Amino acid sequence: MEKKVIIVGAGLVGSLWAVYMQKAGYKVTIYERRPDIREAEISAGKSINLALSNRGWKALRNAGVEEEVRKIAIPMPGRIMHDLDGELTYQPYGKKDEAIYSVSRGHLNAIMMDIAENKGHAKIHYKHQCLDANLNEGIVKLKNLNNGEVFEDQADLVFAADGAFSAVRYNAMQKVDRFNYSQFYIEDGYKELLLPADENGNYQLEKNALHIWPRGRFMLIALPNEDGSFTCTLFMPYDNHEYAFNDLTSDEKIDQFFKTVFPDFHSLMPNLIENWHQHPLSSLSIVRCYPWTMGKFALMGDSCHATVPFYGQGMNAGFEDCSVMWELFQKHQNWADTFKAYQTTRKPDGDALQDLSLHNYYVMRDHVANEDFLLQKKIEAKLHEKHPDKWIPLYSQVTFSHIPYSKAIAQGKKQDLIMKEILKDPAIKENWDSEEIEEKILAQL
Amino acid sequence: MEKKVIIVGAGLVGSLWAVYMQKAGYKVTIYERRPDIREAEISAGKSINLALSNRGWKALRNAGVEEEVRKIAIPMPGRIMHDLDGELTYQPYGKKDEAIYSVSRGHLNAIMMDIAENKGHAKIHYKHQCLDANLNEGIVKLKNLNNGEVFEDQADLVFAADGAFSAVRYNAMQKVDRFNYSQFYIEDGYKELLLPADENGNYQLEKNALHIWPRGRFMLIALPNEDGSFTCTLFMPYDNHEYAFNDLTSDEKIDQFFKTVFPDFHSLMPNLIENWHQHPLSSLSIVRCYPWTMGKFALMGDSCHATVPFYGQGMNAGFEDCSVMWELFQKHQNWADTFKAYQTTRKPDGDALQDLSLHNYYVMRDHVANEDFLLQKKIEAKLHEKHPDKWIPLYSQVTFSHIPYSKAIAQGKKQDLIMKEILKDPAIKENWDSEEIEEKILAQL
Repeated sequence: MEKKVIIVGAGLVGSLWAVYMQKAGYKVTIYERRPDIREAEISAGKSINLALSNRGWKALRNAGVEEEVRKIAIPMPGRIMHDLDGELTYQPYGKKDEAIYSVSRGHLNAIMMDIAENKGHAKIHYKHQCLDANLNEGIVKLKNLNNGEVFEDQADLVFAADGAFSAVRYNAMQKVDRFNYSQFYIEDGYKELLLPADENGNYQLEKNALHIWPRGRFMLIALPNEDGSFTCTLFMPYDNHEYAFNDLTSDEKIDQFFKTVFPDFHSLMPNLIENWHQHPLSSLSIVRCYPWTMGKFALMGDSCHATVPFYGQGMNAGFEDCSVMWELFQKHQNWADTFKAYQTTRKPDGDALQDLSLHNYYVMRDHVANEDFLLQKKIEAKLHEKHPDKWIPLYSQVTFSHIPYSKAIAQGKKQDLIMKEILKDPAIKENWDSEEIEEKILAQL
Repeated sequence: MEKKVIIVGAGLVGSLWAVYMQKAGYKVTIYERRPDIREAEISAGKSINLALSNRGWKALRNAGVEEEVRKIAIPMPGRIMHDLDGELTYQPYGKKDEAIYSVSRGHLNAIMMDIAENKGHAKIHYKHQCLDANLNEGIVKLKNLNNGEVFEDQADLVFAADGAFSAVRYNAMQKVDRFNYSQFYIEDGYKELLLPADENGNYQLEKNALHIWPRGRFMLIALPNEDGSFTCTLFMPYDNHEYAFNDLTSDEKIDQFFKTVFPDFHSLMPNLIENWHQHPLSSLSIVRCYPWTMGKFALMGDSCHATVPFYGQGMNAGFEDCSVMWELFQKHQNWADTFKAYQTTRKPDGDALQDLSLHNYYVMRDHVANEDFLLQKKIEAKLHEKHPDKWIPLYSQVTFSHIPYSKAIAQGKKQDLIMKEILKDPAIKENWDSEEIEEKILAQL
């Protein structure tokens, strides 16, 4: 009899995992709560653009679906900081050929669903809500939202890739004794704005870069879309700060806010107020839990490690769950051991990913505008270029390598201590490029 | 029209709060998921005995129901430690007239239900499960488990005193955007045993004490019941330690375990194995969340700050929620401001209570067997006796005062730093009682 797998959620991770499970010889059924987004109108600027990087590419490549995604990905080899006077500072993310890639979540998800159907031979049932689960029996209780019918389906394995508000986790796992769980919202929310192409259809900002307006306690960012527009996102506290969403209570205040703190952006952005009201204010949370597997069920992606978006690693980590799970299954050749190894090795990486993401908000909104920070980056980039085996900057470990997140964060802390000492040198601005400094750093490794 | 309040949960806190709300002029309706425990057989040894102390007494006194509870409370002015050889060490909890009081949870809850009905004029509906809530409208959706009927009830205010697994919190609050929530299970579980009275109906251990068998990583405790028996509780890791529940896989191993680590208890305890199998192994968790109030709803007791039982403060904190909420209502005279003040002032105390409770597990299972710890306690007791305005030991602040938990924990940390220095004096065992030491301590305050 053919082995059967149920995947809950036809998002990015669920769709990709379908391809892997087809390779493993399983018949794949996917249940997705929402309607088929491919039949709805997809706006490229509808949600935070995603930054695809090496971990994500590897997982796509291993499933043989890299090329389809390459077509819609816009390389961003560095970030451009916009100061209050509209002055720009460019900082490369990594070495010459390294880049992160802007992709629209909606467009990517549509492609991934095609891939799940065509390469994963998956049957996707839309508008099917998960109501409950029997974890040990591999049973999912579902409601067909088209007709209200409630029914059960059963499989040899069930993967819950149903996002930060996972129904499987909430309805079944959270009720199990000794399941650790936390949902934590940061003080800040976000709101999107769409900066359109100019009248000739051209990009109004440099296309191949991630733009940041770092303002200390808050920031605006912009990522390029394929059509010449940019998806921009304002991250800011809800309240209790000099600038806060809940204080922008009138159109006048909103306009004044942008004019004051993002003057160059304000001058490029038509219909700012209309645009402001078209997009909701959304919250940002971290979800942690353990265990990640129970009986025949495993959580993947946001359902087990939802994070804030500041390292651009949420999707990449979810895709990496697929390649990690796959490698472990190749090694163990049975799912009981694979599940065990998956959660024990991968949980520390999920925690590290979240710590990295939280920390990178400070980096993006504040440090990138800081001379010392940029100098440190330059020194580290040079070391990395000359001694790639001895020094990989934390950002490169996270973004361009496959070093486990937990290892990267530990190495990054060590490197940061070394660099803090080096930057204390009163002549560092002059001699940062010297042999002496290089040797001093290498001696501490 | 008469104002109406719904209380979800007829446990200790819900029942007491009914009396307060009746005083405030409300008609009180209570919905309780379980059957009426007064109609079921109540075993005094069925659940962890509770240690009632000053915070709890004050809340009972303010509601005019102290006397009913006094009748079933057994004073425990100190703890008695049992070492491996059966040697006993006594340590008073506070000053001469201070004590904590052993009460059976089942018996106390039955009394509190009587009080809710008689003094609170509450109508208690048993076997009614909360399915959902409309927080802003004050609506509770309920299922009558007697006949399966589902219906809604509405009130001016709703208080959820429905415990660590609060249905109001799970079904309604946890789904609200930006609700912070965590459930965290410690590595250890617990199992109860009932040490019966001897053949003449007498207590086999000193009645007026809390007994502890501290064994470093685990411990056994015993609290007196009214009938000559003791409710005993073994706290121990589930696994991965020298002694662990999951390793006690046979009756022989269980018997050998008690014989080895609790020999004096083993010799007193008849039918150990039968008793062992009569009681389940239960987990221990900390639940944190915020906000505690939403719309017309407020959480009280375990539903907002469930804790591990090691400081004997879970019930006392829940009762104190009642007196705090009441005092705030007296002050503000409206519920909107009362709710706001309740959650902002009380949340840090809930967090402190949980930190204190977690920490006291180390104290009970390990430090109480330690000479330095007992010496420190002696020095602090003397200081407290002579300078009650200048030095209140942490245990006394928590147990015998009404100092907010958050303030107590902060003061306790300061005191602990001072005492750590004092104990470094190589002659401290001889001169602990000297004027010099006393002055040295007071000088640091």
